[in-house]
Amino acid sequence: MVNELEDRIGSIYAPVKGRLSLVERRIRTLSSSNIPNMDTLLDHVLSSGGKRVRAALTLLSSEFYTHDEDYPIIMAAAVELLHLATLIHDDTVDNSDMRRGKATVSNLWGKHIAVLFGDYVFAASATFVCDTYNVRVIRRFSETIMELASGEIIEYFNCYDPTQSREAYNDRIYRKTASLFCTAAETGAILGGAPEDQIQALRSYAHNIGMAFQLVDDLLDIEGDAGELGKPVGNDLLHGVLTLPSIMLLERSPWKSPSDNPIEALFKYRGDSLDEVNQREEKLECVLEMITRLGIIDECSEVIRGYCTRANECLALLPRCPAYDSLSTLASFMLDRTK
Amino acid sequence: MVNELEDRIGSIYAPVKGRLSLVERRIRTLSSSNIPNMDTLLDHVLSSGGKRVRAALTLLSSEFYTHDEDYPIIMAAAVELLHLATLIHDDTVDNSDMRRGKATVSNLWGKHIAVLFGDYVFAASATFVCDTYNVRVIRRFSETIMELASGEIIEYFNCYDPTQSREAYNDRIYRKTASLFCTAAETGAILGGAPEDQIQALRSYAHNIGMAFQLVDDLLDIEGDAGELGKPVGNDLLHGVLTLPSIMLLERSPWKSPSDNPIEALFKYRGDSLDEVNQREEKLECVLEMITRLGIIDECSEVIRGYCTRANECLALLPRCPAYDSLSTLASFMLDRTK
Repeated sequence: MVNELEDRIGSIYAPVKGRLSLVERRIRTLSSSNIPNMDTLLDHVLSSGGKRVRAALTLLSSEFYTHDEDYPIIMAAAVELLHLATLIHDDTVDNSDMRRGKATVSNLWGKHIAVLFGDYVFAASATFVCDTYNVRVIRRFSETIMELASGEIIEYFNCYDPTQSREAYNDRIYRKTASLFCTAAETGAILGGAPEDQIQALRSYAHNIGMAFQLVDDLLDIEGDAGELGKPVGNDLLHGVLTLPSIMLLERSPWKSPSDNPIEALFKYRGDSLDEVNQREEKLECVLEMITRLGIIDECSEVIRGYCTRANECLALLPRCPAYDSLSTLASFMLDRTK
Repeated sequence: MVNELEDRIGSIYAPVKGRLSLVERRIRTLSSSNIPNMDTLLDHVLSSGGKRVRAALTLLSSEFYTHDEDYPIIMAAAVELLHLATLIHDDTVDNSDMRRGKATVSNLWGKHIAVLFGDYVFAASATFVCDTYNVRVIRRFSETIMELASGEIIEYFNCYDPTQSREAYNDRIYRKTASLFCTAAETGAILGGAPEDQIQALRSYAHNIGMAFQLVDDLLDIEGDAGELGKPVGNDLLHGVLTLPSIMLLERSPWKSPSDNPIEALFKYRGDSLDEVNQREEKLECVLEMITRLGIIDECSEVIRGYCTRANECLALLPRCPAYDSLSTLASFMLDRTK
């Protein structure tokens, strides 16, 4: 299964394969600074897996017209660095010890360094973008950093609130995930010399892909395999974060009285005592069982399928070329994505 | 004394007073976002005192030639926001509960929000700069964020190392403090339409002012009054951070054998037990007494005086105008600065 997925990714990335390694080389230029341990830190985050899907999106979106070869590579490096910076800070604030089977920066070097190194990588990404000399692209990039941070802030302040709407959820996952997908494609298209309507089409395509990407993540958290996920099933709910499956459950409210709401029941237990942990596990089981029994998993999959279909529709405007085929395949790939 | 200082700052800021309030208004536009608690958070950091010296430096540096009025205001707002973002993250990583007599963001809202809100303010500052439409200025700004973060990283990795050179110290305080002073003045001068040699002169002026600013801070930490400082005397040394006074002491090494080195003796005690704390206090006393007895305080003051003199010399190239007088007065003011 993993090999099959790798093959598919390989064929999606084929039109930009050579340039993806130039992106990697560009990112590595950061390590030649005079800062102690910078090589080790950078090496650690760059070798922690990750499919560079955002960088590929920038490069593929730049492929439709002839253009300066260097600018999309710089941009893809910046987009990938920005993504890495957000992971460093997210792991720090979430107290995550592991990511993709490797220890996190905050786990190995402490939160102090994780915050500062994250800042450094954020700033490096913003400095990279300046090498495009395109103020529109530079501004979109900075706005995206604001959107990413605001998405995380909104998630935090809405924790343990069992009254969130689907609209609020959509806004939140746009900010924390889809916004960077949008910017990856939009800036690639701008620097690739695409006309404005096609820039917007690629942005909309990436918006749909990004939303689908986060929805898959959120669905895997509910129905995935704890071993494959590298974290417990229901991890979001355990931390008070509502995602689409739990919001759908709240929308249906198949319980007799408000006091039977199983999500509210779960959110009552937030402590670290053995009793609280046991109660939490039990209530979580109850929520997960309801989500499965009521067919919510299938309903979520339908929503994801909708985003992937719309992503493909956005491509209609674009000229046919190998990048077109890759983006189209990427949309179907999203449906089958696993960790 | 405080009133006298306030009067002097008032006269230094006089040529740009009206525009400094426009800077404040510009920063406040951030609060009109859809993010929960953003108003409260922003209000908290903006009302936490601070003399807006970096913003004033940008505005004063833009005053020598006729120019678009709006760009230096945007730039000054960005510079001040960047400074605020660094304070939010510094307080978070340093576990500081108070700053200028007010509770810090991490103290009131927790580290989670402090990291994310700091990220948001960093990104907002970078977005503001894009409104100058000047790629040179935008790039300097991003590079400065890298310098600021790297200064903090270097300080962290060099903690408790009693072999640091004066050159390493100078590099560190350039990164963590003087770099933003340089950028504040340089970008003000660029956006103010100054010719290149005067841009460089204003940058050098600000470099000297910034170095003096940090040196004063570091000296106050050694000889200041704990009540006025709002933190214990010798706080840097207690956290393993060497500054110029302790580096000068190491350079002189007035002890009989290396094992008598009082700074190494101090750095042995890092624990939280009562005995460790007592030992640390006692060893710190010994270091502070030596620094005072050997005339190191005066020697440091001489170094600061040197920076202020060189700052004034940098101004020679610039045309006389009220901003010139303010910058010149600011250089003398640095010598008398207290918290």
